[in-house]
Amino acid sequence: MKLSPGSALLTDLYELTMLQAYFDAGVNETASFELFVRALPMQRNFLMAGGLEQVLDYLEHLRFGPDELSALAKTRRFPAPFLRSLEHLRFTGEVDAMREGTVFFPDEPVLRITAPMREAQLVESRVMNLVHFETVVASKAARCVLAAPDKLLVDFGLRRAHGAEAAVLSARASYLAGFGGTATLAAGLAFDIPVYGTMAHSYVQAYADEAVAFEDFARSQPTNATLLIDTYDTEEAARKVVALAPLLLNDGIAIRGVRIDSGDLGEHARRVRRILDEGGLSGVTIFASGNLDEHRLHQLMSEQAPIDGFGVGTRMNTSADAPYLDCAYKLVEYGGEPRRKRSEGKSTWPARKAVYRLTGPNGVMAGDLITLANERRDGEPLLEPVMRGGKRCAQPVTLHSARAHAWRQLRALPNAQRTLDVDEPYPVAVSDGLRELARRLDEGRPG
Amino acid sequence: MKLSPGSALLTDLYELTMLQAYFDAGVNETASFELFVRALPMQRNFLMAGGLEQVLDYLEHLRFGPDELSALAKTRRFPAPFLRSLEHLRFTGEVDAMREGTVFFPDEPVLRITAPMREAQLVESRVMNLVHFETVVASKAARCVLAAPDKLLVDFGLRRAHGAEAAVLSARASYLAGFGGTATLAAGLAFDIPVYGTMAHSYVQAYADEAVAFEDFARSQPTNATLLIDTYDTEEAARKVVALAPLLLNDGIAIRGVRIDSGDLGEHARRVRRILDEGGLSGVTIFASGNLDEHRLHQLMSEQAPIDGFGVGTRMNTSADAPYLDCAYKLVEYGGEPRRKRSEGKSTWPARKAVYRLTGPNGVMAGDLITLANERRDGEPLLEPVMRGGKRCAQPVTLHSARAHAWRQLRALPNAQRTLDVDEPYPVAVSDGLRELARRLDEGRPG
Repeated sequence: MKLSPGSALLTDLYELTMLQAYFDAGVNETASFELFVRALPMQRNFLMAGGLEQVLDYLEHLRFGPDELSALAKTRRFPAPFLRSLEHLRFTGEVDAMREGTVFFPDEPVLRITAPMREAQLVESRVMNLVHFETVVASKAARCVLAAPDKLLVDFGLRRAHGAEAAVLSARASYLAGFGGTATLAAGLAFDIPVYGTMAHSYVQAYADEAVAFEDFARSQPTNATLLIDTYDTEEAARKVVALAPLLLNDGIAIRGVRIDSGDLGEHARRVRRILDEGGLSGVTIFASGNLDEHRLHQLMSEQAPIDGFGVGTRMNTSADAPYLDCAYKLVEYGGEPRRKRSEGKSTWPARKAVYRLTGPNGVMAGDLITLANERRDGEPLLEPVMRGGKRCAQPVTLHSARAHAWRQLRALPNAQRTLDVDEPYPVAVSDGLRELARRLDEGRPG
Repeated sequence: MKLSPGSALLTDLYELTMLQAYFDAGVNETASFELFVRALPMQRNFLMAGGLEQVLDYLEHLRFGPDELSALAKTRRFPAPFLRSLEHLRFTGEVDAMREGTVFFPDEPVLRITAPMREAQLVESRVMNLVHFETVVASKAARCVLAAPDKLLVDFGLRRAHGAEAAVLSARASYLAGFGGTATLAAGLAFDIPVYGTMAHSYVQAYADEAVAFEDFARSQPTNATLLIDTYDTEEAARKVVALAPLLLNDGIAIRGVRIDSGDLGEHARRVRRILDEGGLSGVTIFASGNLDEHRLHQLMSEQAPIDGFGVGTRMNTSADAPYLDCAYKLVEYGGEPRRKRSEGKSTWPARKAVYRLTGPNGVMAGDLITLANERRDGEPLLEPVMRGGKRCAQPVTLHSARAHAWRQLRALPNAQRTLDVDEPYPVAVSDGLRELARRLDEGRPG
């Protein structure tokens, strides 16, 4: 059968075996699950929430259609009455979540789903899959933005992203975090993200003469050509650009920029800048790419390399130094009663929770407090109602406004979280009420 | 617009800007591109080829339909004559490739595409995206298989895979490498992979009494129940299973297994095995999961932990210690002439190539030789013709036969490549003919 990313079958088998057991036993009271991260990866000092829009889309469209039901029937795993119950299953519940682009920390619920048990259970696998991945990428991309805040950063990672959806959603998540665009055409079209493109080495190689390759490309892209100049000799190619520019200008064609993709990017950029400037091409920009991440961006910024924009690919799209988060989607309340898992090293805070953020003078983040959902505290509550009765209930949040929110969040980071080094943790406290409830549950219920 | 994983728009913008430049300049002679990996990640001593089937699917179905053309027109980037040329574009070329499951090494072409330049260029982004990802995962999963060759390994990673396609294709790639199944239902249905499922902690937590949770689940899955026993106290839960089993057996219900997901898995497994055996449940299997990878599997195997199967998730699906490969898709021949890129640190071997593998006594791999495509050497040629004239030309290779091939490949690995440590590199030589050609190109063509 053909895979559809929104299919109800994009789930772990155990969600369905559990649903069948719930169905057989008549278990379906209201359940609340919270999605949170247990600990920061070693190389992160904050996380940025992503993926909520895709989760809401998934929940609004969740259903077992005829194709799915017939595929399930063919497995002979499930009795007919249970399959009939799936036919009518829709997500009718509630979602409370942090806005996309919100900075968050371990143990803080980033999303809560409250719904009849079967609905809330079924959606676990895909909801985690979406929130986890976009959060992984937004958190990595945010570090790149902090390293080079005034530069154009463009997602270059389709080829080494983990499949089609990873390519498109990492373009989205990096744009959310402050990137200026993507090279992935499908992502640009799907999410209205600016798309950038230059040329590959193969284009230059297809010509016997590099200068002719440049000229043909510029004539084909008369207002928009960025020429890749490192296929053979970078500085020699920059001199060819200088020689070519006046001829093209006669025909009304202006070269927009050059790209360097190998070697010492900072050193090449300085030499190329000099060649271009001395050749009267001070308006031609220099774009750099090749194995970039926040650390290399920071290095190039420190040495004031004359680079106007960066293509950041693989290491950002795969979040190469921290490609996953230790996240969980845990039952915190069932049938009105708080629940707590106590597995070794994996115990969780019980009950529906809220997160309040305190800010100091100048709006800088000063500390978060995790409380029971019904406690009222000072500070900004980070979770908002976004879905009620299975339908979006909040004003629609565009990717562009989420990106503006993310930018404000990054500006409000304390210095210890703004740096790439991981040093001083951000203060996150747990309310007395929540601690007391956890203690009470541990005493009262040996399991 | 809606994303379709097979869409021609799932590409980098630069493929289309180059296509336009080729179109404007009439450049469209036959081009050969080869996909290869420049260097092994530090934590790998071989790679396993994956993704070919998805590439062939993509190439056979590649076209710009009305939706794609209208989306491109709306960008106002491309003139109408060029868009009309896309309407008729199909992939009409050739593919030569290593079979999926083949072990390979740096600089060896794993796949070659030979086609009119525009077709061969356009497909770069998606072909790399597919081959790269499945190769990354198959190579990681193969290490897990080598660490625990006689155990059932099940892919558990949907929730932290990088999106929907990553979940499904990592299930496929790990099965190719020798896993026994997946928890991801959609992957099982799409590729006929055995699907496994147990229960989540939330299932146990939904009940006031853990034993009742177990009983309801077993009654709902009378031949197939694996009970998760670490929600509260692992050994206590094992004793509940022992108490429950005789009651269930009276009703003809047999518990199949238990799963442990936290704490010291080896120590818990030993204690639980003793409890089960003493309770007359020596036929009940123990399944373990939680942060597993090849190193933890190796550790548990060394201590002879009584574990029958493992759920291996996140670290395998994301290939967490090496989430990407330094791979490239490079023009090696154009219009019958060999081509070579010479960017600093990124120079490539020119011309269409072959790879021959020598085996020693007992069929153990003894060394590879990279040659020009038309050299004839001893050994097994690793690249085979798989597509001609845009259509598959070889006998169809099922995933199951590719998996058998992968298993034979792993058995033929030299000892230095079988271990998890990275020590002695596998010998890969380059023929004199290829070296001579590269030298000649460097001398004759300054770029």
